[in-house]
Amino acid sequence: MTLLIGVDVGGTKVLAGEVTTSGRVLRTAVRRTPGRRVSVTALEDALTEAVAEVADGRTPDGVGLAAAGFVDVAGDRVMFAPHLPWAGDDVRRGLSRRWGAPVTLDNDANCAAHAESRLGAARGASSALLVTMGTGIGGALVMGGTLLRGANGMAGEFGHMQVVPDGRACECGRTGCWEQYSSGNALVRHARARVVVEPTVLTDLCRGRPDQLTGPMVTAAAEDGDLVARQAFASVGDWLGVGLAGLVAAFDPEVVVVGGGVSAAGDRLLDPARVALRRSLVGAEHRTVPEVRAAHLGPLAGLVGAALLAHDAR
Amino acid sequence: MTLLIGVDVGGTKVLAGEVTTSGRVLRTAVRRTPGRRVSVTALEDALTEAVAEVADGRTPDGVGLAAAGFVDVAGDRVMFAPHLPWAGDDVRRGLSRRWGAPVTLDNDANCAAHAESRLGAARGASSALLVTMGTGIGGALVMGGTLLRGANGMAGEFGHMQVVPDGRACECGRTGCWEQYSSGNALVRHARARVVVEPTVLTDLCRGRPDQLTGPMVTAAAEDGDLVARQAFASVGDWLGVGLAGLVAAFDPEVVVVGGGVSAAGDRLLDPARVALRRSLVGAEHRTVPEVRAAHLGPLAGLVGAALLAHDAR
Repeated sequence: MTLLIGVDVGGTKVLAGEVTTSGRVLRTAVRRTPGRRVSVTALEDALTEAVAEVADGRTPDGVGLAAAGFVDVAGDRVMFAPHLPWAGDDVRRGLSRRWGAPVTLDNDANCAAHAESRLGAARGASSALLVTMGTGIGGALVMGGTLLRGANGMAGEFGHMQVVPDGRACECGRTGCWEQYSSGNALVRHARARVVVEPTVLTDLCRGRPDQLTGPMVTAAAEDGDLVARQAFASVGDWLGVGLAGLVAAFDPEVVVVGGGVSAAGDRLLDPARVALRRSLVGAEHRTVPEVRAAHLGPLAGLVGAALLAHDAR
Repeated sequence: MTLLIGVDVGGTKVLAGEVTTSGRVLRTAVRRTPGRRVSVTALEDALTEAVAEVADGRTPDGVGLAAAGFVDVAGDRVMFAPHLPWAGDDVRRGLSRRWGAPVTLDNDANCAAHAESRLGAARGASSALLVTMGTGIGGALVMGGTLLRGANGMAGEFGHMQVVPDGRACECGRTGCWEQYSSGNALVRHARARVVVEPTVLTDLCRGRPDQLTGPMVTAAAEDGDLVARQAFASVGDWLGVGLAGLVAAFDPEVVVVGGGVSAAGDRLLDPARVALRRSLVGAEHRTVPEVRAAHLGPLAGLVGAALLAHDAR
C-alpha cells in the first residue's frame, strides 16, 4: 500500500498527515514551528519529527510539503517566507535526501487550492479565488481547472497587498499589508488589545496572560458568546470582505473559497466578509456577486493538496 | 476598401478613428463626453457625430466601441459606467441600427489590452497586466495570449479596489478607490488644489480658473518645469506603483503596460511608479520585478483595439 504524507509548514505550526489517494486523512502529527529567527536545521528537525511520527517506522512513497512562503517555479526552493527561516534553500533536495523519499514542494495556498479544486468547495467551478487565512493570508487562483502560477511562480500572494497607507508594520518589512488586518495574527492582536483593558472569558482561557492568547482560544470564546472575541471576528471578517472585493473586481471569479485555520470559525468569519464584499464591490448591484464558501477540507486542505501533488509527481 | 472605425468612449472625451486592418490610424475625430448626468441620447449623439466625421459620407464596414464601463459577457450592453449615462442599455443593437453598420462593444481596457497584446508593448509576453489611466483607471489581464474576461465579463476593474479606508469619495458610490489617487482626475485634482493657493504657470494655462484645468495642461506645465505639475505627477505615479505592487503580488505577470491619456507623460509618470512598485512589492529582492512599460499605441490603443475587434467579428 502506498504511503503518502502531506506536511503543511505554517507560520505557527507544522501539521503532517497520512493521506489516501482519494484525499482522506488517516492520521496526523503536529509540531510547533520554531519561528523565523531560528536556524533552518531547527525547522527541518521539527518537520522530520512530524513526518516520522506519521510514518511510524514505514518509508513514505512520497512526501508533499505545503510551505507558507514563495516557492520557485521549479518547486525546489523556498525563496522567501515572512514567517519561516528558509531563504533560497533547496528544501526539496535536502529533505528528500534526509528522509530517503521523494519530496514535492509547493506554496501552501497552491496546495490548498489544488485540493479544494479537485475535491472540495471549488470543485466544478470554472474559476475560483482561494484565500487561505492562517497566521497570515495566502491565496491562489484557479482558471478553467488550472492553477495560475505566474511568471515567477509567485501569483496569489494576496496577503501583502497594501490596504492601509502607512498602516501596521508587517513581518515582510512593509506596512499596511492586508494580512495585518485580516488573519489569525490580526484576530489574536485584536483580542489581546481588549483583554488587557477588560477581563473577559478570554482572560481565563489564557490564564491571565494575554501574550499567551491563541487563535483557537478566540474561536472558542466567540462560540461561548464572548463579546470581545466576537468583535475580533467581526473586524477580521470585515477586512476579509474589503480585500476580497478588490480581488473580485480584478479577477471576477465564479466562486470565492476561504480556507486556513481561521476559517474553522465558519460563518462567524464569513458572514461579515460577505456583507463587506457586497458593500465594497464596485457595481455589485449590476453583477453576480460570487458566493463566499468555507473550504470543505478546512485546515487540512494544505496537507491534502501537498500529498495529492506528491502522488501526481510519482 | 474596408472602412473600420474604432471609438473610445471615455469619461472626458469621445475619440473616433479610422483604423487599417494592420492597426494604423488614418484620421480621428473628437467630441466632449456629455457626462454621466445627461441622457443616453446626448451621449449617443456625440458618438454619432464623431463617427460621421470620420466616415465622411462613407458607410463603415464595422464600428468597434471601447467603453469606459462594465460590458456584459455577450458584448451587447454597458451595464454600469461611473462616468457615463449608460446603465443596462443595449448599446450594440441600438447604435448598429442607427448607423446601419455592424457594431462591436467591449470594455475600453480590454480593447486597449487587445491592441497592445497584438501589436504593442505586450507583444510576445506570456502574461501581461495592462492598466489604462484616463479619467479613471481601467485594466485587463492577458494570460497566454488570452484576455481574462471573468465569470461576469468584468475582470480587470482595478480602478475601484480600495486603497485608503474611508478615503476620497468616488463616483462609483464607494470611498478610497485607487483611481481617486492615481488617474487623470487625481492628477488634475492635485494640481488644482495647489494652484488655488499659489500662482504657477498652470494659473496662466487655465486663465486663472483652476476649475478649467485639464490633464493635458498639467502634462504641458510639467514639461515646462512647473513644480506643482511635477509634484502632481510624482503623487499620481507613486500611487500607481503602490497599486501595481498589489496586482503584481496577486498575478505575477511578466510585464506591466500602462496606457490611457495620462500615460502620454511617459517616464514622468512611470519613473515614480517603478520606484513605488519595487518598494511596495513583497519579496521584491527575491523575484523578478516586472518591467513597467508605456503602452506603444498610447491614447489610441482603445480605439485601435476596438476597431481590430470589429474586424475580427466580421
